[in-house]
Amino acid sequence: MVTIKQIAERLGVSISTVSKGLNGASDISPELSQSILDTAVEMGYQTKRMKRADSKKLCIFVSNMDYESANHFAYDVILGFKQAAFRDNWSVTTLPITYHFQDKEKYDTFMLKNGYSGAFFLGFSLLDAWINQLENTTMPTVLLDNYIKANPHVAYVGTDSSEGIDAAIEHLVSLGHRKIAFLNGSPHSMITELRQQAFLDSMNEHNIPIIPTLVANGRYDAESARDYVPAFLEQGATAILCGTDVIAYGVLKECDRLGYRVPQDISIIGADDLPLSAHLNIALTTIRQNRVQLGKLSYIALDGVMNQVPISKTLLRPQLIVRNSTAKVVDR
Amino acid sequence: MVTIKQIAERLGVSISTVSKGLNGASDISPELSQSILDTAVEMGYQTKRMKRADSKKLCIFVSNMDYESANHFAYDVILGFKQAAFRDNWSVTTLPITYHFQDKEKYDTFMLKNGYSGAFFLGFSLLDAWINQLENTTMPTVLLDNYIKANPHVAYVGTDSSEGIDAAIEHLVSLGHRKIAFLNGSPHSMITELRQQAFLDSMNEHNIPIIPTLVANGRYDAESARDYVPAFLEQGATAILCGTDVIAYGVLKECDRLGYRVPQDISIIGADDLPLSAHLNIALTTIRQNRVQLGKLSYIALDGVMNQVPISKTLLRPQLIVRNSTAKVVDR
Repeated sequence: MVTIKQIAERLGVSISTVSKGLNGASDISPELSQSILDTAVEMGYQTKRMKRADSKKLCIFVSNMDYESANHFAYDVILGFKQAAFRDNWSVTTLPITYHFQDKEKYDTFMLKNGYSGAFFLGFSLLDAWINQLENTTMPTVLLDNYIKANPHVAYVGTDSSEGIDAAIEHLVSLGHRKIAFLNGSPHSMITELRQQAFLDSMNEHNIPIIPTLVANGRYDAESARDYVPAFLEQGATAILCGTDVIAYGVLKECDRLGYRVPQDISIIGADDLPLSAHLNIALTTIRQNRVQLGKLSYIALDGVMNQVPISKTLLRPQLIVRNSTAKVVDR
Repeated sequence: MVTIKQIAERLGVSISTVSKGLNGASDISPELSQSILDTAVEMGYQTKRMKRADSKKLCIFVSNMDYESANHFAYDVILGFKQAAFRDNWSVTTLPITYHFQDKEKYDTFMLKNGYSGAFFLGFSLLDAWINQLENTTMPTVLLDNYIKANPHVAYVGTDSSEGIDAAIEHLVSLGHRKIAFLNGSPHSMITELRQQAFLDSMNEHNIPIIPTLVANGRYDAESARDYVPAFLEQGATAILCGTDVIAYGVLKECDRLGYRVPQDISIIGADDLPLSAHLNIALTTIRQNRVQLGKLSYIALDGVMNQVPISKTLLRPQLIVRNSTAKVVDR
């Protein structure tokens, strides 16, 4: 166990100075305070608060995402995490984090100061400063949909794209579809690339020729459908698989605008199963990520990392939910 | 909760007959008994023993593997599993399972009869009858190094080949190696294929040309080194990455036989970090799978599946252990 004395020796300062630094006292310079906190983290020091069993605290940091309402993707993920953590007597705080806050305060420092034993990152992108700090953090951390190489303290949690997309293709093939288009999300994202590869693999496995002009990277919004769907339909696509439900909403609208009926003329499949998707005029067939389970799995992974099991990644099985936006192919 | 009455109604037999079937009584036919057990499993029936908290039981089934001595791969995996399960008050039984036994008794039936809540499969191959039954089992099951598609009750646990092989290539590149050979294990194995892909990806990422004649599938033994190493050396390979430590033992021996010094003339890297590898004459640089952690992760995954979190796969981070079998490249 690392002691305050050891930190003091390493830094060549007094024990009382280290104590001040760890407790955020105002009578030492911010630079020294930061250096004490950094050293404490580097040496694996735990605050008394972290050691006391009656104040076991975890934190969920949320960036770029809403989570207050049950319609938001993150809402149920957070719920699932809390449910699983509760079983092990953790108290969990949810904190929305801005870019500005991340620039002001280092991740490890924030964790140590506040006595958190581990954290779950939701919605973070490469633009978030804390993501880059995860390469070297010693804080047990779980990250949704992002992978940090080689750091044993950080685990990646996500959904198995490969299995979900394969189930979607299998469903379409069983309905007689062969001209299957894929409108994926924005390029340069790990999730986009995983879904792209999963699509190509599954098409190959089902012996369906891949027509390059039927595969496109749009954006993670409903609007990019207008840029691709007309060409898909002109080329005779009978089904469009979409990178997310939100993309599928745009595709539904665009097909409607062009006078194609869903599912009679064209089948559409989304991914995620957002709360709205079951309640559209044409209820969406989609690859469900069970958000509560995803939250639970994130806690399970964090529990592993906190117990010195360096998890690289752990993936949830998705589930194909068949609703009204897919049907048997009819020759046009 | 499913009751004995419901099972009786489904089968059109009396409650006492179902009770006899579940308890293995000898005065009903084996066929009827099997059918009762099958139906109970299918309907998600839990025996009283499974429900009683004071007899929480898990089982580790071992096939095709030794595990009694600390030199065996499975020994520490089992230890890690038991350590993690102990934390949650499970009692764990380890059972070696023969092909004959698997043919005689169905997996689900065995689990139900013996009151096990979940199981961990170690060393199973496609020749094991129980592996094929995992596609439809409703028993929470975790499988080391094998993936079962789409069944939410079965999770795959393994080591992240991609990260381990990338660390090995990075190490070799940092030592100046560019003519890197890869002697992988037997073809038609998921692990072999994952390692093969990881090798190709990492070589590409490091901008090292892949020479097809320097990449080979041997077998998972020490003897196949004789079939490939002479050609690797003739072609000027300065390093040989091996699919397992056992393959590396063969490569070390073969290099010695051909008069090549390790690591002066040729660098060798294994994978697994078997207990023996640190104690060879030339201690082996290798990609470690931490076996205790692998066991712990397997329990963590089983715990998830038992709590209705359908884990597809979960991977442990490997670690490159640098010893004496690798060194800076010297032009020959």
